[in-house]
Amino acid sequence: MKDLKDTQNELDTRQISIDRVGVRGIKFPIVVRDKQNCPQSTVATVALMVDLPKEFKGTHMSRFVEALHGHRRYLDVHSAIQLPKTLLRRFDAQRARIELEFPFFLMKKAPVTGIEGIMDYNVRFEIDAKRGEAGDFTLTLQVPVTTLCPCSKAMSERGAHNQRGVVTYAVKFAGEAIWLEDLISLIEGCASCELYSLLKRPDEKYVTDVAYDHPVFVEDLVRNVAVATEGYKAFKWYRVEAENFESIHNHNAYAMIERDLEGTEK
Amino acid sequence: MKDLKDTQNELDTRQISIDRVGVRGIKFPIVVRDKQNCPQSTVATVALMVDLPKEFKGTHMSRFVEALHGHRRYLDVHSAIQLPKTLLRRFDAQRARIELEFPFFLMKKAPVTGIEGIMDYNVRFEIDAKRGEAGDFTLTLQVPVTTLCPCSKAMSERGAHNQRGVVTYAVKFAGEAIWLEDLISLIEGCASCELYSLLKRPDEKYVTDVAYDHPVFVEDLVRNVAVATEGYKAFKWYRVEAENFESIHNHNAYAMIERDLEGTEK
Amino acid sequence: MKDLKDTQNELDTRQISIDRVGVRGIKFPIVVRDKQNCPQSTVATVALMVDLPKEFKGTHMSRFVEALHGHRRYLDVHSAIQLPKTLLRRFDAQRARIELEFPFFLMKKAPVTGIEGIMDYNVRFEIDAKRGEAGDFTLTLQVPVTTLCPCSKAMSERGAHNQRGVVTYAVKFAGEAIWLEDLISLIEGCASCELYSLLKRPDEKYVTDVAYDHPVFVEDLVRNVAVATEGYKAFKWYRVEAENFESIHNHNAYAMIERDLEGTEK
Amino acid sequence: MKDLKDTQNELDTRQISIDRVGVRGIKFPIVVRDKQNCPQSTVATVALMVDLPKEFKGTHMSRFVEALHGHRRYLDVHSAIQLPKTLLRRFDAQRARIELEFPFFLMKKAPVTGIEGIMDYNVRFEIDAKRGEAGDFTLTLQVPVTTLCPCSKAMSERGAHNQRGVVTYAVKFAGEAIWLEDLISLIEGCASCELYSLLKRPDEKYVTDVAYDHPVFVEDLVRNVAVATEGYKAFKWYRVEAENFESIHNHNAYAMIERDLEGTEK
Repeated sequence: MKDLKDTQNELDTRQISIDRVGVRGIKFPIVVRDKQNCPQSTVATVALMVDLPKEFKGTHMSRFVEALHGHRRYLDVHSAIQLPKTLLRRFDAQRARIELEFPFFLMKKAPVTGIEGIMDYNVRFEIDAKRGEAGDFTLTLQVPVTTLCPCSKAMSERGAHNQRGVVTYAVKFAGEAIWLEDLISLIEGCASCELYSLLKRPDEKYVTDVAYDHPVFVEDLVRNVAVATEGYKAFKWYRVEAENFESIHNHNAYAMIERDLEGTEK
Repeated sequence: MKDLKDTQNELDTRQISIDRVGVRGIKFPIVVRDKQNCPQSTVATVALMVDLPKEFKGTHMSRFVEALHGHRRYLDVHSAIQLPKTLLRRFDAQRARIELEFPFFLMKKAPVTGIEGIMDYNVRFEIDAKRGEAGDFTLTLQVPVTTLCPCSKAMSERGAHNQRGVVTYAVKFAGEAIWLEDLISLIEGCASCELYSLLKRPDEKYVTDVAYDHPVFVEDLVRNVAVATEGYKAFKWYRVEAENFESIHNHNAYAMIERDLEGTEK
Repeated sequence: MKDLKDTQNELDTRQISIDRVGVRGIKFPIVVRDKQNCPQSTVATVALMVDLPKEFKGTHMSRFVEALHGHRRYLDVHSAIQLPKTLLRRFDAQRARIELEFPFFLMKKAPVTGIEGIMDYNVRFEIDAKRGEAGDFTLTLQVPVTTLCPCSKAMSERGAHNQRGVVTYAVKFAGEAIWLEDLISLIEGCASCELYSLLKRPDEKYVTDVAYDHPVFVEDLVRNVAVATEGYKAFKWYRVEAENFESIHNHNAYAMIERDLEGTEK
Repeated sequence: MKDLKDTQNELDTRQISIDRVGVRGIKFPIVVRDKQNCPQSTVATVALMVDLPKEFKGTHMSRFVEALHGHRRYLDVHSAIQLPKTLLRRFDAQRARIELEFPFFLMKKAPVTGIEGIMDYNVRFEIDAKRGEAGDFTLTLQVPVTTLCPCSKAMSERGAHNQRGVVTYAVKFAGEAIWLEDLISLIEGCASCELYSLLKRPDEKYVTDVAYDHPVFVEDLVRNVAVATEGYKAFKWYRVEAENFESIHNHNAYAMIERDLEGTEK
């Protein structure tokens, strides 16, 4: 019988190092902690990667899954940052990267009746670690909002086209991470109106009126978020994208602002 | 050397016939013909299937792809109906089924300026054939529209929430097939307003006003389509679904009506 | 000021009842119970619908979301069945329907080393309730598997093409519901080999050999599942579909068997 | 009556320029030219964007759609490069960007029988233009392939797990663009075997044997493509990613190499 040859450990002669190698598309139940310090159960899609020096033919894929399981399921901002460090050690690697994407839930009160409903937001963590250096953490948040068209409002005596849009907001923190709840508020305050899962009639009248009174183009939306972000003094980089699922077209309006704030005075 | 054993032709002893076996997810360039008799090039996703009697272990998958290629690329309503018949012959089958899904394009004039732009609609053909019987053809059409909420309009002095919605409309014809263009018009006439790819400022004012003056719930939308469909006397079955990507929620409103018209007086 | 008109309660004159109206695409954290009676947290995508008599212009969409929240988050087979009954009462409806779709997780031991890893499966509940009747429950389960081609094996002296496939398995129970774990085992036993999230080298050798020794066409896979299902005497209806992401083509092989077992002798 | 106010032309006081603003998700029928100089009809998903100086409140979204229509439908490498230049002029912009994504079709002969079938590949053009500078063109190509695991082959006496994988290959040309057909060949030659849409029995035996005789990890696949790419002397930058839809797991193996070749000796 053949013995179980470790093909991955063979010498590779092509002299080409690999930037990232690993596993993707793992569904994994995780627990994140919210601002009230309550644990929240959700489901993440996970990718785990390391670099591979030019001498080695292959990595050991099963070790990624072992490292993920080893972390148990608490994978919020503070514990997730440990996972790439575990990979560095485990694989004797120079660089490691993890990506986590999951829905985050928030109990929200309707604006007039105060009735509660659960809203969902997409969250993505990208964490890069280098041997001997601090890790690099990028947080991306997708926040759905209402946008009402200023041009349509200005031209029409009655009504204005409006629609669901989504803000994709990516940040790198200058210091401490900010709670997801606070970032969500920052973004929701920049749109024509925020969304709710549960609205009774007085609430629906309220959000209709608020949106009509706060028209924004996609351009306004990304600029409002940029102003709020730069005022916060908490970030070293951000990129904000807005995409409107136009109610008058079968395509979308889009705007994007990206800024490196490291050179700027704080 | 082994000879190339025809495993599929072996006898199967489990005594279980298979309802459908074949291939799915084939991307294939096709040409459809529009109402002006112009050929229109597009790309379909194709599935081809036959039944398999209990005696046979397997079908011959390559023959499906050969049959598809044999049809060249003209696959509109009239020629597509031949494809399952080819499968019946080719496989000596009792039942055959094809599914084709593709974007269909329509040049549309903006309502005020008359400027032209191309709109796209999703179309799906499902054609079932039985040995010795006429085929059964189901056409499904997805038409994006504007919907403006009657309740929001009634409650607010200014504006009303509106959004993009999509009508999924499936029909079986009683006699001759109806042109896609006519079915699209039928559906677009039932919404708050139709969509355009290209609107200049006077057009945008127009669609804003038209939508405000024609508020519809998803319930109204499917009922309007039901009334128009039943008035047409051309169908033996239909199902109409409407889904609104609500601009005030992160979930969708939905309604569906399905009717068998065969017993009804024409 | 206008009062908050209840537009939905207005009389409708089109004389067309609506089969289903409600909400879709709600993301909602739920807890399901597994065979060991352990609660498992996951995230569902939810739809909730009722019928609407011809007299009423619209339904009250917010009540669906309230009903969902009212059920807290325990939504396994036994408690989910209560939700459409709540809708019947709440809406004074004749028919109600809910759809829940979520990933279900199972801790699985690798076949040789016994090392544990989490596998995920897609689960879907469709529950229909009619006033004064027992509800109708359809469970759909998606199980990814390995399939190895018998024809490729028979022709080649060395190796055989194999690939990931997915079995989509829908059942209606004749009596008591069967645990998801048992249904997953039933299906995994019908493929060339089952999948694992974590395999060490001896495990990988094992699954390679097992798959090679158990070649199945998509046709074999659905027939194997059909035989196992009919032997179980626990179902009144089933439909099994297999789709192979062929490693030699850019399209998929597909087979389907559907049977009504109610007339059959048990 | 209000006149049709040009809200977009209003002065903006937030002092924030926008990196990109435009439209996305437009489905548009296009014609590309292949190596034999034959026109090929396909369907693209299109995005069109420009920058917006800090003084302007909004852009004019309809002009993007007009510019797209103005180009008729010939949008291969050579004509697509004109489209962002048109945007620069039309919008008096400093920067413009277009993104086009479409399936590209290739008639391929089966390796033994020579029978012909159509294969599809995903293609993406990203073209950036700056006022007064040459444009920057990034071509991305997705090529599905067979990969057979060297470790599984080495350990097992019989067979080896294999699967469909996809290579995502992005390049910037140093000089002339290379035909898609040649890039596809380059990539297909680096895998265990290439894919076909139509294979008869002798062809299936052939591809089974070829894959078994050319095992590759994802690591080997990206290194093979890297070696072939660097040998070509035609590129100033490339990134190659491979993702295997593992037949033994429900997650994917992944590898990536990215290189800037501009400083390197040609």
